Amino acid sequence: MQSVCFTTETTSDGVVERDFTVGEIPGVLWSPASSPERAPLVLMGHGGGTHKKWPAMTGRARLLVTGCGFHVACVDAPGHGDRPRTAHDEREIAALYRAREAGEPEGPVVVRYNAHLAERAVPEWQATLDALQELPEIGGAGPVGYYGLNMGTAIGVPLTAADPRITAAVFGLHWPDALAEPARRITVPVEFAFQWDDEHIPREAGLALFDAFASKEKTLHANTGSHKELPRFEADSAARFFARHLVRASTSPALT
Amino acid sequence: MQSVCFTTETTSDGVVERDFTVGEIPGVLWSPASSPERAPLVLMGHGGGTHKKWPAMTGRARLLVTGCGFHVACVDAPGHGDRPRTAHDEREIAALYRAREAGEPEGPVVVRYNAHLAERAVPEWQATLDALQELPEIGGAGPVGYYGLNMGTAIGVPLTAADPRITAAVFGLHWPDALAEPARRITVPVEFAFQWDDEHIPREAGLALFDAFASKEKTLHANTGSHKELPRFEADSAARFFARHLVRASTSPALT
Repeated sequence: MQSVCFTTETTSDGVVERDFTVGEIPGVLWSPASSPERAPLVLMGHGGGTHKKWPAMTGRARLLVTGCGFHVACVDAPGHGDRPRTAHDEREIAALYRAREAGEPEGPVVVRYNAHLAERAVPEWQATLDALQELPEIGGAGPVGYYGLNMGTAIGVPLTAADPRITAAVFGLHWPDALAEPARRITVPVEFAFQWDDEHIPREAGLALFDAFASKEKTLHANTGSHKELPRFEADSAARFFARHLVRASTSPALT
Repeated sequence: MQSVCFTTETTSDGVVERDFTVGEIPGVLWSPASSPERAPLVLMGHGGGTHKKWPAMTGRARLLVTGCGFHVACVDAPGHGDRPRTAHDEREIAALYRAREAGEPEGPVVVRYNAHLAERAVPEWQATLDALQELPEIGGAGPVGYYGLNMGTAIGVPLTAADPRITAAVFGLHWPDALAEPARRITVPVEFAFQWDDEHIPREAGLALFDAFASKEKTLHANTGSHKELPRFEADSAARFFARHLVRASTSPALT
Protein backbone atom coordinates (compact mmCIF):
# COMPACT_ATOMS: atom_id res chain seq x y z
CA MET A 1 0.00 0.00 0.00
CA GLN A 2 1.19 3.51 -0.81
CA SER A 3 1.47 6.11 1.94
CA VAL A 4 0.63 9.79 2.07
CA CYS A 5 3.78 11.83 1.46
CA PHE A 6 3.32 15.43 2.62
CA THR A 7 5.33 18.03 0.71
CA THR A 8 4.24 21.46 2.00
CA GLU A 9 2.20 22.80 4.92
CA THR A 10 0.69 26.24 5.40
CA THR A 11 -1.87 27.52 7.93
CA SER A 12 -4.30 30.35 7.30
CA ASP A 13 -7.39 31.49 9.22
CA GLY A 14 -7.81 28.26 11.10
CA VAL A 15 -7.20 25.92 8.16
CA VAL A 16 -4.07 23.79 7.73
CA GLU A 17 -3.36 23.07 4.06
CA ARG A 18 -0.98 20.22 3.29
CA ASP A 19 -0.01 19.24 -0.24
CA PHE A 20 0.66 15.53 -0.61
CA THR A 21 1.27 12.76 -3.06
CA VAL A 22 0.09 9.19 -2.97
CA GLY A 23 2.27 7.50 -5.56
CA GLU A 24 1.89 9.63 -8.69
CA ILE A 25 -1.33 11.33 -7.52
CA PRO A 26 -0.96 14.92 -6.27
CA GLY A 27 -3.48 16.00 -3.66
CA VAL A 28 -4.22 18.50 -0.93
CA LEU A 29 -5.54 17.87 2.57
CA TRP A 30 -7.25 20.68 4.45
CA SER A 31 -7.69 20.22 8.23
CA PRO A 32 -8.78 22.26 11.24
CA ALA A 33 -5.84 24.10 12.80
CA SER A 34 -7.20 23.25 16.22
CA SER A 35 -7.84 19.64 15.38
CA PRO A 36 -9.55 17.15 17.63
CA GLU A 37 -8.05 13.69 17.93
CA ARG A 38 -10.01 12.40 14.99
CA ALA A 39 -12.53 13.89 12.55
CA PRO A 40 -14.60 12.80 9.55
CA LEU A 41 -13.13 13.11 6.05
CA VAL A 42 -14.79 14.56 2.95
CA LEU A 43 -13.33 13.64 -0.44
CA MET A 44 -13.86 16.46 -2.89
CA GLY A 45 -13.82 16.03 -6.68
CA HIS A 46 -13.14 19.05 -8.89
CA GLY A 47 -14.87 19.87 -12.17
CA GLY A 48 -13.62 19.35 -15.71
CA GLY A 49 -10.84 21.69 -16.83
CA THR A 50 -10.03 22.80 -13.27
CA HIS A 51 -7.84 21.36 -10.52
CA LYS A 52 -7.57 20.52 -6.83
CA LYS A 53 -7.03 24.14 -5.70
CA TRP A 54 -9.61 25.82 -7.92
CA PRO A 55 -11.40 28.58 -5.93
CA ALA A 56 -14.59 26.52 -5.70
CA MET A 57 -12.55 23.75 -4.05
CA THR A 58 -10.73 25.95 -1.56
CA GLY A 59 -13.96 27.80 -0.71
CA ARG A 60 -15.94 24.62 -0.10
CA ALA A 61 -13.06 23.09 1.85
CA ARG A 62 -12.94 26.12 4.14
CA LEU A 63 -16.68 25.79 4.86
CA LEU A 64 -16.28 22.12 5.76
CA VAL A 65 -13.12 22.58 7.83
CA THR A 66 -14.06 25.69 9.80
CA GLY A 67 -17.83 25.08 9.85
CA CYS A 68 -17.84 21.35 10.60
CA GLY A 69 -14.35 20.51 11.84
CA PHE A 70 -13.82 18.00 9.01
CA HIS A 71 -10.76 17.00 7.02
CA VAL A 72 -11.17 17.60 3.28
CA ALA A 73 -9.05 15.97 0.58
CA CYS A 74 -8.93 16.80 -3.11
CA VAL A 75 -6.70 15.23 -5.77
CA ASP A 76 -6.01 16.29 -9.33
CA ALA A 77 -8.08 14.13 -11.67
CA PRO A 78 -6.23 12.33 -14.49
CA GLY A 79 -5.10 14.84 -17.11
CA HIS A 80 -5.87 17.79 -14.80
CA GLY A 81 -3.89 20.21 -12.63
CA ASP A 82 -0.32 19.06 -12.09
CA ARG A 83 -0.83 15.82 -14.01
CA PRO A 84 0.23 15.02 -17.58
CA ARG A 85 -2.31 14.63 -20.35
CA THR A 86 -2.31 11.47 -22.45
CA ALA A 87 -2.85 11.55 -26.19
CA HIS A 88 -6.41 10.37 -25.46
CA ASP A 89 -6.92 13.37 -23.12
CA GLU A 90 -5.66 15.77 -25.81
CA ARG A 91 -8.00 14.28 -28.43
CA GLU A 92 -11.05 14.53 -26.19
CA ILE A 93 -10.26 18.09 -25.07
CA ALA A 94 -9.85 19.08 -28.72
CA ALA A 95 -13.20 17.43 -29.51
CA LEU A 96 -14.84 19.41 -26.70
CA TYR A 97 -13.44 22.71 -27.98
CA ARG A 98 -14.53 21.86 -31.53
CA ALA A 99 -18.08 21.15 -30.31
CA ARG A 100 -18.13 24.44 -28.39
CA GLU A 101 -16.85 26.48 -31.30
CA ALA A 102 -19.31 24.84 -33.67
CA GLY A 103 -22.16 25.57 -31.26
CA GLU A 104 -22.86 21.84 -30.98
CA PRO A 105 -23.97 20.16 -27.72
CA GLU A 106 -21.12 19.46 -25.31
CA GLY A 107 -22.96 16.61 -23.64
CA PRO A 108 -21.89 13.71 -25.86
CA VAL A 109 -18.18 14.57 -25.54
CA VAL A 110 -18.35 15.34 -21.81
CA VAL A 111 -20.30 12.18 -21.01
CA ARG A 112 -17.88 9.98 -22.97
CA TYR A 113 -14.66 11.62 -21.78
CA ASN A 114 -15.76 11.84 -18.14
CA ALA A 115 -16.70 8.15 -18.15
CA HIS A 116 -13.19 7.39 -19.39
CA LEU A 117 -11.63 9.60 -16.70
CA ALA A 118 -13.77 7.94 -14.02
CA GLU A 119 -12.34 4.53 -14.93
CA ARG A 120 -8.86 5.92 -14.29
CA ALA A 121 -9.84 8.01 -11.26
CA VAL A 122 -11.84 5.52 -9.16
CA PRO A 123 -8.90 3.22 -8.31
CA GLU A 124 -6.75 6.31 -7.68
CA TRP A 125 -9.30 7.66 -5.18
CA GLN A 126 -9.46 4.28 -3.47
CA ALA A 127 -5.67 4.16 -3.11
CA THR A 128 -5.71 7.74 -1.83
CA LEU A 129 -8.42 6.91 0.70
CA ASP A 130 -6.47 3.81 1.83
CA ALA A 131 -3.47 6.06 2.48
CA LEU A 132 -5.42 8.91 4.13
CA GLN A 133 -7.06 6.46 6.53
CA GLU A 134 -3.59 5.51 7.77
CA LEU A 135 -3.19 9.04 9.17
CA PRO A 136 -3.96 9.11 12.91
CA GLU A 137 -6.17 12.24 12.60
CA ILE A 138 -8.44 10.44 10.09
CA GLY A 139 -8.25 6.75 10.94
CA GLY A 140 -9.78 3.72 9.31
CA ALA A 141 -13.12 3.63 11.08
CA GLY A 142 -14.34 7.21 10.73
CA PRO A 143 -17.11 8.42 8.44
CA VAL A 144 -16.23 9.46 4.88
CA GLY A 145 -18.22 11.73 2.56
CA TYR A 146 -17.83 12.54 -1.13
CA TYR A 147 -18.60 15.96 -2.63
CA GLY A 148 -18.27 16.65 -6.34
CA LEU A 149 -20.28 18.35 -9.10
CA ASN A 150 -19.86 18.19 -12.88
CA MET A 151 -16.86 15.91 -13.59
CA GLY A 152 -16.67 15.47 -9.80
CA THR A 153 -20.02 13.69 -10.08
CA ALA A 154 -18.95 11.63 -13.10
CA ILE A 155 -16.09 10.27 -10.98
CA GLY A 156 -17.88 10.31 -7.62
CA VAL A 157 -20.94 8.27 -8.58
CA PRO A 158 -18.99 5.15 -9.67
CA LEU A 159 -16.58 5.70 -6.75
CA THR A 160 -19.42 5.84 -4.20
CA ALA A 161 -21.08 2.82 -5.81
CA ALA A 162 -17.80 0.90 -5.53
CA ASP A 163 -16.53 1.94 -2.10
CA PRO A 164 -18.61 1.18 1.01
CA ARG A 165 -16.45 3.51 3.11
CA ILE A 166 -18.31 6.50 1.61
CA THR A 167 -21.47 6.96 3.68
CA ALA A 168 -22.92 10.24 2.33
CA ALA A 169 -22.47 12.12 -0.94
CA VAL A 170 -23.28 15.42 -2.65
CA PHE A 171 -23.52 15.26 -6.44
CA GLY A 172 -24.94 17.33 -9.26
CA LEU A 173 -24.79 18.85 -12.72
CA HIS A 174 -24.33 15.75 -14.88
CA TRP A 175 -26.12 13.53 -17.36
CA PRO A 176 -27.60 10.11 -16.50
CA ASP A 177 -26.16 8.26 -19.52
CA ALA A 178 -23.11 6.68 -17.88
CA LEU A 179 -24.15 7.32 -14.27
CA ALA A 180 -27.66 5.92 -13.86
CA GLU A 181 -26.31 2.37 -13.61
CA PRO A 182 -23.84 3.00 -10.75
CA ALA A 183 -26.38 5.40 -9.16
CA ARG A 184 -28.81 2.50 -8.87
CA ARG A 185 -26.23 0.75 -6.66
CA ILE A 186 -25.89 3.74 -4.29
CA THR A 187 -27.94 3.52 -1.09
CA VAL A 188 -26.24 6.11 1.14
CA PRO A 189 -27.84 9.55 1.70
CA VAL A 190 -27.43 11.80 -1.34
CA GLU A 191 -27.97 15.52 -1.94
CA PHE A 192 -28.18 16.28 -5.66
CA ALA A 193 -28.05 19.76 -7.19
CA PHE A 194 -29.04 20.76 -10.67
CA GLN A 195 -29.86 23.91 -12.56
CA TRP A 196 -33.44 24.33 -13.73
CA ASP A 197 -32.32 26.29 -16.82
CA ASP A 198 -29.10 24.39 -17.59
CA GLU A 199 -28.16 25.07 -21.21
CA HIS A 200 -26.18 21.81 -21.45
CA ILE A 201 -28.09 19.27 -19.36
CA PRO A 202 -31.81 18.88 -20.18
CA ARG A 203 -34.11 19.12 -17.18
CA GLU A 204 -35.37 15.58 -17.74
CA ALA A 205 -31.78 14.31 -17.74
CA GLY A 206 -31.07 15.88 -14.34
CA LEU A 207 -34.30 14.51 -12.90
CA ALA A 208 -33.55 11.05 -14.34
CA LEU A 209 -30.14 10.90 -12.67
CA PHE A 210 -31.62 11.97 -9.33
CA ASP A 211 -34.34 9.37 -9.73
CA ALA A 212 -31.77 6.63 -10.35
CA PHE A 213 -30.14 6.76 -6.89
CA ALA A 214 -31.39 3.86 -4.76
CA SER A 215 -30.85 5.90 -1.58
CA LYS A 216 -33.70 5.89 0.90
CA GLU A 217 -32.68 9.42 1.88
CA LYS A 218 -32.06 11.70 -1.07
CA THR A 219 -32.76 15.36 -1.69
CA LEU A 220 -32.94 17.22 -4.98
CA HIS A 221 -32.05 20.91 -5.07
CA ALA A 222 -32.99 22.64 -8.31
CA ASN A 223 -32.28 26.33 -8.76
CA THR A 224 -33.14 28.73 -11.52
CA GLY A 225 -30.20 29.78 -13.65
CA SER A 226 -27.75 28.45 -16.21
CA HIS A 227 -25.18 25.67 -15.81
CA LYS A 228 -22.57 27.85 -14.16
CA GLU A 229 -25.00 29.80 -11.95
CA LEU A 230 -25.34 27.28 -9.11
CA PRO A 231 -25.99 29.53 -6.08
CA ARG A 232 -23.31 29.86 -3.42
CA PHE A 233 -25.78 28.83 -0.73
CA GLU A 234 -25.71 25.28 -2.12
CA ALA A 235 -22.19 24.97 -0.68
CA ASP A 236 -23.59 25.90 2.75
CA SER A 237 -26.33 23.35 2.23
CA ALA A 238 -23.77 20.66 1.37
CA ALA A 239 -21.86 21.45 4.56
CA ARG A 240 -25.04 21.04 6.60
CA PHE A 241 -25.80 17.78 4.78
CA PHE A 242 -22.39 16.38 5.75
CA ALA A 243 -22.76 17.69 9.29
CA ARG A 244 -26.06 15.78 9.57
CA HIS A 245 -24.74 12.55 8.13
CA LEU A 246 -21.08 12.36 9.11
CA VAL A 247 -21.13 13.90 12.57
CA ARG A 248 -24.03 11.78 13.74
CA ALA A 249 -22.13 8.67 12.67
CA SER A 250 -18.80 9.88 14.03
CA THR A 251 -17.07 8.10 16.84
CA SER A 252 -15.22 11.25 17.81
CA PRO A 253 -16.58 12.71 21.04
CA ALA A 254 -15.07 16.06 20.07
CA LEU A 255 -17.58 16.38 17.25
CA THR A 256 -20.79 15.19 18.83
CA MET B 1 -59.16 49.64 9.36
CA GLN B 2 -59.28 47.00 12.08
CA SER B 3 -56.62 46.90 14.79
CA VAL B 4 -54.80 44.03 16.47
CA CYS B 5 -56.48 43.22 19.77
CA PHE B 6 -54.18 41.20 22.02
CA THR B 7 -55.91 38.79 24.41
CA THR B 8 -53.17 36.77 26.13
CA GLU B 9 -49.39 36.91 26.44
CA THR B 10 -46.97 34.23 27.61
CA THR B 11 -43.17 34.00 27.37
CA SER B 12 -41.19 30.78 27.14
CA ASP B 13 -37.54 30.10 26.22
CA GLY B 14 -37.01 33.47 24.58
CA VAL B 15 -40.30 33.56 22.63
CA VAL B 16 -43.21 35.86 23.46
CA GLU B 17 -46.53 34.35 22.31
CA ARG B 18 -49.47 36.72 22.04
CA ASP B 19 -52.93 35.61 20.99
CA PHE B 20 -54.83 38.27 19.10
CA THR B 21 -57.89 38.97 17.04
CA VAL B 22 -58.28 41.22 14.03
CA GLY B 23 -62.05 41.59 13.76
CA GLU B 24 -63.36 38.01 13.72
CA ILE B 25 -60.00 36.44 12.84
CA PRO B 26 -58.13 34.74 15.68
CA GLY B 27 -54.36 34.73 15.39
CA VAL B 28 -51.12 34.34 17.27
CA LEU B 29 -48.00 36.49 17.09
CA TRP B 30 -44.65 35.05 18.18
CA SER B 31 -41.84 37.54 18.85
CA PRO B 32 -38.32 37.55 20.29
CA ALA B 33 -38.38 38.14 24.05
CA SER B 34 -35.37 40.42 23.68
CA SER B 35 -36.81 42.26 20.76
CA PRO B 36 -34.97 44.85 18.72
CA GLU B 37 -36.80 48.04 17.81
CA ARG B 38 -38.15 46.54 14.62
CA ALA B 39 -37.87 43.16 12.92
CA PRO B 40 -39.14 41.43 9.76
CA LEU B 41 -42.44 39.56 9.85
CA VAL B 42 -43.19 36.08 8.52
CA LEU B 43 -46.82 35.15 7.90
CA MET B 44 -47.34 31.45 8.42
CA GLY B 45 -50.23 29.47 6.93
CA HIS B 46 -51.24 26.15 8.51
CA GLY B 47 -52.27 23.01 6.68
CA GLY B 48 -55.77 21.64 6.10
CA GLY B 49 -57.49 20.19 9.16
CA THR B 50 -55.05 21.80 11.59
CA HIS B 51 -54.87 25.24 13.22
CA LYS B 52 -52.64 28.18 14.13
CA LYS B 53 -50.98 26.44 17.09
CA TRP B 54 -50.44 23.03 15.51
CA PRO B 55 -47.00 21.65 16.55
CA ALA B 56 -45.57 22.24 13.05
CA MET B 57 -46.55 25.92 13.39
CA THR B 58 -45.14 26.45 16.88
CA GLY B 59 -41.94 24.57 15.96
CA ARG B 60 -41.34 26.57 12.78
CA ALA B 61 -42.21 29.81 14.59
CA ARG B 62 -39.61 29.06 17.26
CA LEU B 63 -36.92 28.51 14.61
CA LEU B 64 -37.74 31.84 12.97
CA VAL B 65 -38.02 33.81 16.21
CA THR B 66 -35.01 32.47 18.07
CA GLY B 67 -32.87 31.71 15.00
CA CYS B 68 -33.57 34.84 12.98
CA GLY B 69 -35.08 37.36 15.40
CA PHE B 70 -38.26 37.62 13.32
CA HIS B 71 -41.91 38.11 14.25
CA VAL B 72 -44.14 35.26 13.09
CA ALA B 73 -47.93 35.50 12.74
CA CYS B 74 -50.37 32.69 12.11
CA VAL B 75 -54.17 32.94 11.88
CA ASP B 76 -56.82 30.23 11.85
CA ALA B 77 -57.96 29.68 8.27
CA PRO B 78 -61.71 29.87 7.58
CA GLY B 79 -63.44 26.82 9.04
CA HIS B 80 -60.35 25.85 11.04
CA GLY B 81 -59.18 26.09 14.67
CA ASP B 82 -61.34 28.43 16.72
CA ARG B 83 -63.49 29.41 13.76
CA PRO B 84 -66.97 28.16 12.86
CA ARG B 85 -67.55 25.91 9.87
CA THR B 86 -70.09 26.93 7.25
CA ALA B 87 -72.46 24.41 5.66
CA HIS B 88 -70.15 24.56 2.63
CA ASP B 89 -67.17 23.63 4.85
CA GLU B 90 -69.07 20.68 6.31
CA ARG B 91 -70.03 19.39 2.86
CA GLU B 92 -66.47 19.57 1.56
CA ILE B 93 -64.98 17.95 4.66
CA ALA B 94 -67.52 15.15 4.35
CA ALA B 95 -66.60 14.75 0.67
CA LEU B 96 -62.91 14.50 1.61
CA TYR B 97 -63.60 11.81 4.21
CA ARG B 98 -65.77 9.91 1.74
CA ALA B 99 -62.97 9.98 -0.85
CA ARG B 100 -60.46 8.76 1.75
CA GLU B 101 -62.67 5.94 2.95
CA ALA B 102 -63.42 4.87 -0.62
CA GLY B 103 -59.69 4.90 -1.43
CA GLU B 104 -60.32 7.52 -4.10
CA PRO B 105 -57.85 10.34 -4.87
CA GLU B 106 -58.07 13.24 -2.41
CA GLY B 107 -56.70 15.71 -4.93
CA PRO B 108 -59.92 16.81 -6.65
CA VAL B 109 -61.65 17.60 -3.35
CA VAL B 110 -58.61 19.25 -1.76
CA VAL B 111 -57.88 21.39 -4.83
CA ARG B 112 -61.50 22.57 -5.08
CA TYR B 113 -62.06 23.17 -1.34
CA ASN B 114 -58.70 24.88 -0.81
CA ALA B 115 -59.36 27.23 -3.73
CA HIS B 116 -62.64 28.16 -2.07
CA LEU B 117 -60.92 28.71 1.29
CA ALA B 118 -58.24 30.84 -0.38
CA GLU B 119 -60.88 33.21 -1.71
CA ARG B 120 -62.09 33.77 1.84
CA ALA B 121 -58.61 33.77 3.42
CA VAL B 122 -56.71 36.17 1.15
CA PRO B 123 -58.64 39.32 2.16
CA GLU B 124 -58.48 38.18 5.79
CA TRP B 125 -54.68 37.89 5.60
CA GLN B 126 -54.47 41.32 4.00
CA ALA B 127 -56.57 42.88 6.78
CA THR B 128 -54.43 41.06 9.36
CA LEU B 129 -51.23 42.31 7.73
CA ASP B 130 -52.62 45.86 7.64
CA ALA B 131 -53.24 45.64 11.37
CA LEU B 132 -49.92 43.95 12.24
CA GLN B 133 -48.00 46.63 10.37
CA GLU B 134 -49.54 49.23 12.71
CA LEU B 135 -47.59 47.65 15.59
CA PRO B 136 -44.42 49.64 16.32
CA GLU B 137 -42.26 46.48 16.52
CA ILE B 138 -43.28 45.50 12.97
CA GLY B 139 -44.03 48.74 11.13
CA GLY B 140 -45.27 49.42 7.64
CA ALA B 141 -41.99 49.46 5.75
CA GLY B 142 -40.31 46.27 6.94
CA PRO B 143 -39.88 43.09 4.91
CA VAL B 144 -42.63 40.45 5.02
CA GLY B 145 -42.32 36.76 4.19
CA TYR B 146 -44.94 34.05 3.75
CA TYR B 147 -44.43 30.40 4.77
CA GLY B 148 -47.08 27.76 4.19
CA LEU B 149 -47.27 24.19 2.87
CA ASN B 150 -50.30 22.13 1.83
CA MET B 151 -53.38 24.34 2.38
CA GLY B 152 -50.93 27.03 3.50
CA THR B 153 -49.68 27.03 -0.10
CA ALA B 154 -53.18 27.04 -1.57
CA ILE B 155 -53.84 30.24 0.37
CA GLY B 156 -50.32 31.68 0.22
CA VAL B 157 -49.84 31.56 -3.56
CA PRO B 158 -52.83 33.78 -4.40
CA LEU B 159 -52.02 35.96 -1.36
CA THR B 160 -48.41 36.48 -2.48
CA ALA B 161 -49.56 37.14 -6.04
CA ALA B 162 -52.00 39.76 -4.75
CA ASP B 163 -49.95 41.52 -2.08
CA PRO B 164 -46.70 43.29 -3.01
CA ARG B 165 -45.73 43.60 0.65
CA ILE B 166 -44.68 39.92 0.64
CA THR B 167 -41.11 39.81 -0.69
CA ALA B 168 -40.12 36.15 -0.19
CA ALA B 169 -42.13 32.94 0.20
CA VAL B 170 -41.77 29.25 1.05
CA PHE B 171 -44.42 26.98 -0.46
CA GLY B 172 -44.89 23.29 -1.17
CA LEU B 173 -46.97 20.14 -1.29
CA HIS B 174 -49.83 21.20 -3.54
CA TRP B 175 -51.26 20.71 -7.01
CA PRO B 176 -50.88 23.21 -9.87
CA ASP B 177 -54.54 23.17 -10.96
CA ALA B 178 -55.74 26.32 -9.17
CA LEU B 179 -52.30 27.72 -8.35
CA ALA B 180 -50.32 27.82 -11.59
CA GLU B 181 -52.14 30.97 -12.69
CA PRO B 182 -51.38 33.08 -9.58
CA ALA B 183 -47.89 31.49 -9.42
CA ARG B 184 -47.15 32.95 -12.85
CA ARG B 185 -47.71 36.41 -11.31
CA ILE B 186 -45.22 35.83 -8.48
CA THR B 187 -41.75 37.26 -9.04
CA VAL B 188 -40.32 37.30 -5.50
CA PRO B 189 -37.80 34.63 -4.38
CA VAL B 190 -39.50 31.29 -3.71
CA GLU B 191 -38.38 28.07 -2.05
CA PHE B 192 -40.67 25.18 -2.97
CA ALA B 193 -40.70 21.78 -1.25
CA PHE B 194 -42.27 18.63 -2.51
CA GLN B 195 -42.09 14.93 -1.81
CA TRP B 196 -40.63 12.72 -4.53
CA ASP B 197 -42.88 9.80 -3.55
CA ASP B 198 -46.03 11.75 -2.63
CA GLU B 199 -48.98 9.38 -2.73
CA HIS B 200 -51.43 12.24 -3.36
CA ILE B 201 -49.61 14.71 -5.60
CA PRO B 202 -48.06 13.26 -8.79
CA ARG B 203 -44.40 14.15 -9.33
CA GLU B 204 -45.22 15.96 -12.57
CA ALA B 205 -47.83 18.06 -10.74
CA GLY B 206 -45.30 19.23 -8.15
CA LEU B 207 -42.73 20.03 -10.85
CA ALA B 208 -45.38 21.89 -12.89
CA LEU B 209 -46.31 24.13 -9.96
CA PHE B 210 -42.63 24.92 -9.27
CA ASP B 211 -42.12 25.66 -12.95
CA ALA B 212 -45.05 28.11 -12.97
CA PHE B 213 -43.51 30.64 -10.57
CA ALA B 214 -42.18 33.64 -12.53
CA SER B 215 -39.53 34.28 -9.85
CA LYS B 216 -36.02 34.85 -11.11
CA GLU B 217 -34.77 33.24 -7.90
CA LYS B 218 -36.51 30.00 -7.04
CA THR B 219 -35.32 26.75 -5.51
CA LEU B 220 -36.96 23.34 -5.60
CA HIS B 221 -36.35 20.93 -2.74
CA ALA B 222 -37.56 17.40 -3.45
CA ASN B 223 -37.08 14.70 -0.83
CA THR B 224 -37.75 10.98 -0.90
CA GLY B 225 -40.74 9.91 1.15
CA SER B 226 -44.50 10.10 1.26
CA HIS B 227 -46.70 13.22 1.55
CA LYS B 228 -46.38 13.51 5.31
CA GLU B 229 -42.67 12.63 5.47
CA LEU B 230 -41.25 16.08 4.64
CA PRO B 231 -37.92 16.09 6.55
CA ARG B 232 -37.52 18.34 9.57
CA PHE B 233 -34.41 19.91 8.05
CA GLU B 234 -36.64 21.65 5.47
CA ALA B 235 -37.85 23.92 8.30
CA ASP B 236 -34.22 24.88 8.98
CA SER B 237 -33.76 25.49 5.28
CA ALA B 238 -36.83 27.76 5.21
CA ALA B 239 -35.43 29.77 8.14
CA ARG B 240 -32.15 30.27 6.27
CA PHE B 241 -34.09 31.25 3.13
CA PHE B 242 -35.93 33.96 5.05
CA ALA B 243 -32.71 35.07 6.75
CA ARG B 244 -31.13 35.54 3.30
CA HIS B 245 -34.06 37.41 1.82
CA LEU B 246 -35.65 39.34 4.68
CA VAL B 247 -32.62 40.36 6.71
CA ARG B 248 -30.73 41.66 3.71
CA ALA B 249 -33.70 43.87 2.85
CA SER B 250 -34.33 44.89 6.43
CA THR B 251 -33.95 48.46 7.56
CA SER B 252 -33.33 47.33 11.11
CA PRO B 253 -29.67 47.73 12.09
CA ALA B 254 -30.22 45.21 14.87
CA LEU B 255 -30.61 42.48 12.27
CA THR B 256 -27.85 43.26 9.81
